[in-house]
Amino acid sequence: MTAYHELERRYARIAAIGDALGILGWDAQTIMPDGANEGRAEQIATLSVMSHELATDPRLGDLLAEAEADGALDPWQRANLREMRRNHAHATAVPADLVAAMSKASSLCEMVWRSARADSDFAALKPSLQTVLDCVRESAAAKSAAMGIAPYDALLDEYDPGARMERIDALFADLAAFLPDLIGRVIDKQAGEPQPLRPVGPFAVEDQRRFGVAMMERMGFDFQRGRLDVSLHPFCGGATDDVRMTTRYDEADFANALMAVIHETGHGLYEQGRPRAHLAQPVGQARGMAVHESQSLIMEMQAARSAEFITWLAPVAREAFGGSGPVWEVENLRRLYGRVERGFIRVDADEVTYPAHVILRYRLERAMVSGDLSLDDLPGAWNDGMKELVGVVPPDDRRGCLQDIHWPSGGWGYFPSYTLGAMTAAQLFDAARTAVPEIPAALGRGDFAPLVGWLRRNVHDTGCFHPSADALLAAATGRPLDVGLFKRHLETRYLAA
Amino acid sequence: MTAYHELERRYARIAAIGDALGILGWDAQTIMPDGANEGRAEQIATLSVMSHELATDPRLGDLLAEAEADGALDPWQRANLREMRRNHAHATAVPADLVAAMSKASSLCEMVWRSARADSDFAALKPSLQTVLDCVRESAAAKSAAMGIAPYDALLDEYDPGARMERIDALFADLAAFLPDLIGRVIDKQAGEPQPLRPVGPFAVEDQRRFGVAMMERMGFDFQRGRLDVSLHPFCGGATDDVRMTTRYDEADFANALMAVIHETGHGLYEQGRPRAHLAQPVGQARGMAVHESQSLIMEMQAARSAEFITWLAPVAREAFGGSGPVWEVENLRRLYGRVERGFIRVDADEVTYPAHVILRYRLERAMVSGDLSLDDLPGAWNDGMKELVGVVPPDDRRGCLQDIHWPSGGWGYFPSYTLGAMTAAQLFDAARTAVPEIPAALGRGDFAPLVGWLRRNVHDTGCFHPSADALLAAATGRPLDVGLFKRHLETRYLAA
Repeated sequence: MTAYHELERRYARIAAIGDALGILGWDAQTIMPDGANEGRAEQIATLSVMSHELATDPRLGDLLAEAEADGALDPWQRANLREMRRNHAHATAVPADLVAAMSKASSLCEMVWRSARADSDFAALKPSLQTVLDCVRESAAAKSAAMGIAPYDALLDEYDPGARMERIDALFADLAAFLPDLIGRVIDKQAGEPQPLRPVGPFAVEDQRRFGVAMMERMGFDFQRGRLDVSLHPFCGGATDDVRMTTRYDEADFANALMAVIHETGHGLYEQGRPRAHLAQPVGQARGMAVHESQSLIMEMQAARSAEFITWLAPVAREAFGGSGPVWEVENLRRLYGRVERGFIRVDADEVTYPAHVILRYRLERAMVSGDLSLDDLPGAWNDGMKELVGVVPPDDRRGCLQDIHWPSGGWGYFPSYTLGAMTAAQLFDAARTAVPEIPAALGRGDFAPLVGWLRRNVHDTGCFHPSADALLAAATGRPLDVGLFKRHLETRYLAA
Repeated sequence: MTAYHELERRYARIAAIGDALGILGWDAQTIMPDGANEGRAEQIATLSVMSHELATDPRLGDLLAEAEADGALDPWQRANLREMRRNHAHATAVPADLVAAMSKASSLCEMVWRSARADSDFAALKPSLQTVLDCVRESAAAKSAAMGIAPYDALLDEYDPGARMERIDALFADLAAFLPDLIGRVIDKQAGEPQPLRPVGPFAVEDQRRFGVAMMERMGFDFQRGRLDVSLHPFCGGATDDVRMTTRYDEADFANALMAVIHETGHGLYEQGRPRAHLAQPVGQARGMAVHESQSLIMEMQAARSAEFITWLAPVAREAFGGSGPVWEVENLRRLYGRVERGFIRVDADEVTYPAHVILRYRLERAMVSGDLSLDDLPGAWNDGMKELVGVVPPDDRRGCLQDIHWPSGGWGYFPSYTLGAMTAAQLFDAARTAVPEIPAALGRGDFAPLVGWLRRNVHDTGCFHPSADALLAAATGRPLDVGLFKRHLETRYLAA
């Protein structure tokens, strides 16, 4: 067996463990009985440790060097080897005891956070969050030393390979200069329009489920290789050829679950569309979290909130839920789903204000990782940033710097993906529409096939063949990420007409 | 860390992988989409190989020897060490390439069996079954050499530690001399009684489910640490503190699902009752398959088909399913659930004829493993044995030697557990009733607590503290397995009154 094939065998094993973890994690969030918590944590910890052991096996370094000297590899194999090398660099950069300390600190902090948030008590969270931050900074420093990139870049790179502060700074600065003014103009414009009506429930859960499943089938989700279930927080998880999507149902508002389903189906289509010849290999995985988020947002924001799609959706939804009256008119639903408001909570934010929430978090976590911002100053810096970027100041920390689970749970460097994903979605949608002009008309018939077909060829089926999100975008759209398309999209949708 | 504690750490890891496999296996049989088959097989194979690697790690032998010389261990630790030694002997006795060959042969043979059974075509199965049998004989020989016991004993010992042919021969010979005559007498007696009526459905699945769940709660099943779902074949699987029971519903017959639920709940209570201080250790597991089967049969056969329980059940079931008429009378249901018939199919057999089916399989598999019976002669030997033991000859191999999945799937040495379990159940029930005289009256009120309380103390909570099923029985009932109690139970239930 060549070194390369031995590496393939080893990474396939790591992928199988990852798939097992995907199912165990899904089960824990959907159907597991409460009393199984401790046992499940033990199973997940055991498999995670074993996966980490495989990923840091001392033999891997030699095998990688040997395979890299192998001149007989084809381009996909070379790309696979590049991804293995990257995984290996991330896995081996941080010493095992620091990985364990980080895992323990974040488990504890996540628990503390649940009550601290409920009590709006930042002081209660601070000590355990400080421990997490210390671990994060130590990990970032270790990765920085091993990989020759800046500490915060090393965090970014884990979620979004190739992402760098320098580039995000430029993109976000452009957006930060644009958004506050745009938000003001959109709100002014909408104030002068008829206020949208909300469809009044109750919308039976079974009706919502049937409607969501039909929508997923329409979008091309393959139920032979996936499921839709219910969880407290919607997500898309599971395993290879076994995509486990979840949603939650609010009897008062069918659109919540529907938009969540459309969003998660974007993730699910990406997972189901990964290149079949490489499913268990690093090169067969999704190209990072920004591209993943672009696939959910291209469905939820670009396609499903387009005028064409809402025109198709309005009568279909009215029929499915037995509704009647002006609330179900296309114009009303368009205004409703295009409503922009300055709010405190990121997950409730609309398409226009959402990036402002993300830019704030990016600035703050960068500063905390570099040491320029201490936890003592976080609540104040949060509120100042909210005022500048979103235009409102949260009345308490519960609705301020305590709202997200990311930092307590150790997810530092992740936030930018949301807005990089939104920009990527705008650019991909623009390119898709140029390449396949019938996409808008098809959406106007509730037909996703032309859009999904383009995404299959240009995104899903490329796995990690391209070395970064920018390289993928360049291949798919002719240029790397360009904030201008996103700005134009927002202006067109929210200020035109 | 002492050698003993290092062993505990390693076996806890093996247990966590086993738990993960339990959930993945449950998921595959209940809710997994079809397209995930291949990926799931890969996950299960990967975790199984990793578990086997841990169980055969060369360091284990030294650690075991070192711990065995440790004079400071308490009795539970010594019992744990004894179980580790036994596990280690089984795991290391068979070379890895034979384990792989066996796994491949049985996967293939299982597939072939599905169509061969449907076509009643033994010749189609023979080649792949021969490959499985060759692997089984080779494994048995390897274990025999390593463990110093007879080859077939080595197979038995894997499912039922301490079980030996010599002992089973004697118990089964006694039963084989007793059963054919008993069967004839019972059938004659029942021919002279009114023929039982069957409750006529449809019984709505939701009503059946509600009734089954209420029964499980009544029996003491803890839904905080388990679930009830649906699968093609009912089973009890899952993980520590996460017992996943399944059943299936037949709208025409509520008793099918009900008795299956009561049976599997017996298994589930055993799993939920394992000693909490040792859940992840070998000593904290169930004491073999015969004892496990005794826990399901003590519920299904001893308790739930007792006159007392049926007296309570009849009006409760009538009410739950909205029934009326003489079919719901106690006497009718007693006759219905006590009906004895000579049949071809083991899984449909009643309490009296079931052991005859098992004795036949025991004799045949013993002879095949020893080489005294060739596969060519299996169909004929099967039919001869059926005539002798059950009194009927199947009209084709589909209803004869092709009916069970056990041999094709590599489960040789397992069959005796069913009847050892039935005998064990009779003996435990007898001892429980002697120790806690109110058990029958409690069952007459639908109250399982006195019976389950006795089982908790004498069976569930002892885990593998006792070295064998016989030792457990001796501690719980004052003597090792005694076929006389089972015979007396059958005579009392089926011939008295």
